[in-house]
Amino acid sequence: MEFAGSHILSVEQFGRADIERVFDVADSMAPYAHRRKITRVLEGAILGNMFFEPSTRTRVSFGCAFNLLGGEVRETTGIENSAIAKGESLYDTARVISGYSDVIAMRHPVAGSVKEFAAASRVPVVNGGDGANEHPTQALLDLYTIGKEVQHRGGSIDGLRIAMIGDLRFGRTVHSLSKLLANFDRVHLTCIAPAELRMPGEIVEHLRARGHTVVESDAMESSIGHVDIAYSTRIQEERFASREEANLYRGRYRLNQAIYTQYCEPNTVIMHPLPRDSRAEANELDPDLNENPNLAIFRQTDNGVLVRMALFALVLDVVHLVDRYEAPVSWYTGKRFGE
Amino acid sequence: MEFAGSHILSVEQFGRADIERVFDVADSMAPYAHRRKITRVLEGAILGNMFFEPSTRTRVSFGCAFNLLGGEVRETTGIENSAIAKGESLYDTARVISGYSDVIAMRHPVAGSVKEFAAASRVPVVNGGDGANEHPTQALLDLYTIGKEVQHRGGSIDGLRIAMIGDLRFGRTVHSLSKLLANFDRVHLTCIAPAELRMPGEIVEHLRARGHTVVESDAMESSIGHVDIAYSTRIQEERFASREEANLYRGRYRLNQAIYTQYCEPNTVIMHPLPRDSRAEANELDPDLNENPNLAIFRQTDNGVLVRMALFALVLDVVHLVDRYEAPVSWYTGKRFGE
Amino acid sequence: MEFAGSHILSVEQFGRADIERVFDVADSMAPYAHRRKITRVLEGAILGNMFFEPSTRTRVSFGCAFNLLGGEVRETTGIENSAIAKGESLYDTARVISGYSDVIAMRHPVAGSVKEFAAASRVPVVNGGDGANEHPTQALLDLYTIGKEVQHRGGSIDGLRIAMIGDLRFGRTVHSLSKLLANFDRVHLTCIAPAELRMPGEIVEHLRARGHTVVESDAMESSIGHVDIAYSTRIQEERFASREEANLYRGRYRLNQAIYTQYCEPNTVIMHPLPRDSRAEANELDPDLNENPNLAIFRQTDNGVLVRMALFALVLDVVHLVDRYEAPVSWYTGKRFGE
Repeated sequence: MEFAGSHILSVEQFGRADIERVFDVADSMAPYAHRRKITRVLEGAILGNMFFEPSTRTRVSFGCAFNLLGGEVRETTGIENSAIAKGESLYDTARVISGYSDVIAMRHPVAGSVKEFAAASRVPVVNGGDGANEHPTQALLDLYTIGKEVQHRGGSIDGLRIAMIGDLRFGRTVHSLSKLLANFDRVHLTCIAPAELRMPGEIVEHLRARGHTVVESDAMESSIGHVDIAYSTRIQEERFASREEANLYRGRYRLNQAIYTQYCEPNTVIMHPLPRDSRAEANELDPDLNENPNLAIFRQTDNGVLVRMALFALVLDVVHLVDRYEAPVSWYTGKRFGE
Repeated sequence: MEFAGSHILSVEQFGRADIERVFDVADSMAPYAHRRKITRVLEGAILGNMFFEPSTRTRVSFGCAFNLLGGEVRETTGIENSAIAKGESLYDTARVISGYSDVIAMRHPVAGSVKEFAAASRVPVVNGGDGANEHPTQALLDLYTIGKEVQHRGGSIDGLRIAMIGDLRFGRTVHSLSKLLANFDRVHLTCIAPAELRMPGEIVEHLRARGHTVVESDAMESSIGHVDIAYSTRIQEERFASREEANLYRGRYRLNQAIYTQYCEPNTVIMHPLPRDSRAEANELDPDLNENPNLAIFRQTDNGVLVRMALFALVLDVVHLVDRYEAPVSWYTGKRFGE
Repeated sequence: MEFAGSHILSVEQFGRADIERVFDVADSMAPYAHRRKITRVLEGAILGNMFFEPSTRTRVSFGCAFNLLGGEVRETTGIENSAIAKGESLYDTARVISGYSDVIAMRHPVAGSVKEFAAASRVPVVNGGDGANEHPTQALLDLYTIGKEVQHRGGSIDGLRIAMIGDLRFGRTVHSLSKLLANFDRVHLTCIAPAELRMPGEIVEHLRARGHTVVESDAMESSIGHVDIAYSTRIQEERFASREEANLYRGRYRLNQAIYTQYCEPNTVIMHPLPRDSRAEANELDPDLNENPNLAIFRQTDNGVLVRMALFALVLDVVHLVDRYEAPVSWYTGKRFGE
């Protein structure tokens, strides 16, 4: 895959070599993201951070990644679709906004909209989530985190044993992550979901066709005993016909420290795409796990900055220049990233 | 007109020499806006981008223009008028915000509000649209685009033949553009509108008093045969008593490639202040015009960045310094601006 | 108090030496805030400006302060609490957002929330207002302004005579300011409020226990004759059971030029935390005071930038470096700050 000038729309663009390229660049971003030094390589460049649907975390992560490369951010936060409300097409919006920006990160509630927008854009577009369809940077940061976590424990993505837990039907992150994993070797995936929220058959078949093992279960405790990663997810309330229907499933799977201790291998990594639903009736990951060093959920969001920096540096073709524009950090940074 | 430290509130501030000065400076901004180089001339300066009414396009255009000069942008997006809701006067808001900013771009739904705000501001204020009243930067970017387009075709604004089409009663952009055109020589303006939405008489009289020709018509096809510019507009739904009333006029004038080919001279330039209403019942400019090289609507928005950069550089008096702070662009830029 | 790496959550953290340290640093920020020069000391740093409740003035002031130190700002404006709406805990939000930022300014409608957030944050958090609880930067900028104003008139905070007028029950700014004043000597405080909106007893007792004088009154004219500062406040409508109940008090105390001339000593300073309610039925400070040179309300908001710059420089430990990163201002600045 040629990154310079490309749109990043789908995990299906990424072969194994592309994924490894992104992860190598993400590694090289750590000194900047962790405030050991700064770089000004994108000074003068503008990110159009176009969130036509609210998502504070993802929006700020994209903006922060661009700032850390020295660029500026102009953005919209999803509330004021004035032009669209007046009948403007995505084509027009894309043509206009791409005249203001050097690269665009875009979230939109409608599946396929980011691809349609990108087709009209004059600058690279990074998909920040388009409805039920794709959220490729989330899948990449998840896989990057998996790689880091198992590497610290002497493993690798090849041969990975992972359980995905919860709403595997509507959860786009588990779909995209599964597709990325298919590029590696000998993955053992355990899908833990209520019968009504099972992983779509085509994803299961795709993995099996590539030689991976997929096991399905509707019971959590008996299925998380031999995995490297327990990847929990939120019930995607907004995809159900009603909140009442969604509530049939909220709280079905709850992982806490007692269950972890009783059922999991030591050092099993706990992940979640966030936000985790911490209300009593859901409580997917109990707060008593917060002190468990294997809870990797905040390392995921930290890694999101690295991965988004990497993608910006790749599509704007400045990877080789990042350290040429570097400078020391002079302010207080504390011990921020658990290093 | 002395630009340094001045407010930009109305097209009526601009004589021909002023317009030409803005356009000369806008020309000099092209290398930065088109990412052939960067400038940091306003590094450390802050734009207060105060949009008390949503307008993504205009807001981002102002912010982008300021970033391209090296400055920072603090902004409000029109949703959270908390202080104003608590009874704060425009005077107070202006006194406070002007203590934070080096220059302010302001949009507000109430006609006259930007002028009232500017009277209390301690820094220059640029009107980004005040209700039905004025939107001077739109008029300037329209006229700048007209100048560029006809120049490419061997013409000039003097002697221009232009048709304005649609809601000429409520469309503030056609009013402001007409006033700017009045500063030039021998303009031939054709006003194409339903009888109820005709161009206000005082504007027609003003142009005629300056020696220009104005013709009025309610039929489009027969009136666009001998013009350099066909300037289409949206029905200003929000200015009508009801959506039903506005809908009497939506779709009245529709320009598409077949009509263009049959009725227009070759190379007639098509313009629109955007957003264009692309819903079937309106469809002012058909998408089949998108491949027509004479469709200048996205060159208009691109030019908006140049014109806003020029206005900022003029009111902050840094025109002579822009190139002293320049640096090369090192990132991927592609072929973005059709050059 | 050790500032580097500290949270700024409450005025109760500040002893007299701490207050004086902040004010000394604020003084040193004047050349940058008043655009006599710029500094880039925080170039590469990111402020997470997290406003989970709208407050344009305070949000822009924090952002502007950080920009003036050379840093970037990523922000949320309170409308789109998507993750929180999906059940995310403040703990999670804090862990995530602190991975993006070098320092966080936070406003939230719930008392105590900023402290809870700070406990989980990996970077310093500055309280930008948490419901009815605290707004420490407002209290610091008020006291800084008082110090400047009385110093210009040959006085000092020790021995200060101040009247606080209005809703002293719900107004968090007068509570916090009173607590800061308690650190000084021989303050004479006159509390002017309706019986139902009196200053809380524990604050009055706290001041008296420290040797200060507190007098209570429900009449304004007879109580403002011998003060250095008349500090007016807004009725905190949003804290009352109903707007009707709040309206019983709106307009109770109105200061205008005639009353000022008749009752106040010459050069009595007029202050207000803003927004002032300028609607006819409230009109706490009449617009006819706008030309009175003793009206300090806009010097307060100007000083807010200095104080917030000082706090950022202190918690990020760059006070000694600010002038090492300085550069001249080359743009038009006019006579902006009444100097």
